[in-house]
Amino acid sequence: MALGKDYANQQCSLARALEVVGERWTLLVVRDAFYGVRRYNDFLVHLGIPRAVLATRLQSLIEAGILQKRRYQESPPREEYVLTDSGKALWPVIRTLGAWGRDHLPGTLPVRVFVHVDCGTELGAYGECPACSVPVPPEDVEMRPGDGLDTDTDNPVGRALLTPRRLLMPLEADRV
Amino acid sequence: MALGKDYANQQCSLARALEVVGERWTLLVVRDAFYGVRRYNDFLVHLGIPRAVLATRLQSLIEAGILQKRRYQESPPREEYVLTDSGKALWPVIRTLGAWGRDHLPGTLPVRVFVHVDCGTELGAYGECPACSVPVPPEDVEMRPGDGLDTDTDNPVGRALLTPRRLLMPLEADRV
Repeated sequence: MALGKDYANQQCSLARALEVVGERWTLLVVRDAFYGVRRYNDFLVHLGIPRAVLATRLQSLIEAGILQKRRYQESPPREEYVLTDSGKALWPVIRTLGAWGRDHLPGTLPVRVFVHVDCGTELGAYGECPACSVPVPPEDVEMRPGDGLDTDTDNPVGRALLTPRRLLMPLEADRV
Repeated sequence: MALGKDYANQQCSLARALEVVGERWTLLVVRDAFYGVRRYNDFLVHLGIPRAVLATRLQSLIEAGILQKRRYQESPPREEYVLTDSGKALWPVIRTLGAWGRDHLPGTLPVRVFVHVDCGTELGAYGECPACSVPVPPEDVEMRPGDGLDTDTDNPVGRALLTPRRLLMPLEADRV
């Protein structure tokens, strides 16, 4: 769908970004990738969306250069989906949008708390560390369970995400 | 549309934020509100979307507490749409998403350049000032034309946005 005839919408980098990640489910797939989810079935289990929708989203994220497919097993062949550098650069978007929801939507309890590993301070609304006054890249972020997290889950991916973990650390590392 | 049965999607503040601003046009309406657009016809002219779509987006933004309607003329009655504090808090989202598009989508020329008024430094990917190492609220941001901006526009709103201006400054101030 085109974003209108106005030049500003066609050229605006925000409009172009929305063309790539604006579809509702897309940023939730990217979010899970930051949490360490890499395998098709894990995305499926954690997101609870139809297979066809997930397959379409993963394909469009690959075409957009946000995810790359990586073979992790030869026989039978198995592939995982990993964030590219361009995909990792979406962290500030994920962070600022989640922080806005947490701070400005009534009745939202933090499901996850994101802290700067260097100092243990919770990230601010801009994804910055208020204590260190620096933007915090995802590699330096630890995700911890928040008050809104349902710890009584039978979702295997949800269970693996109950313990504090670095962003981008492969989920499989917890399940060997 | 529900975001799936998984508790994480239901409770996740990112998922809840996407329920409110995830529809593609919505963030472009919010973007224009940061640029100083306040009047129905100005949104219509600048976004180039059907009237019915714009009316629906404006209404949902009011219901979400992101925009408020304000009467600016009594006879005939005329109203404008202004960002609430909750709406202004979406600036880091607009900024980080636009910066990602600028930096990571091929062939994207910056249509607008956003600088910290205190020091004239262009904002970083997190919406921070790299020189001052502080997050920059929209009130302290000046918007300037970028290389990608089509200055040969007959769009009256586009023309009004050709000159450097503070974010949130009412567009009408340029057109009296």
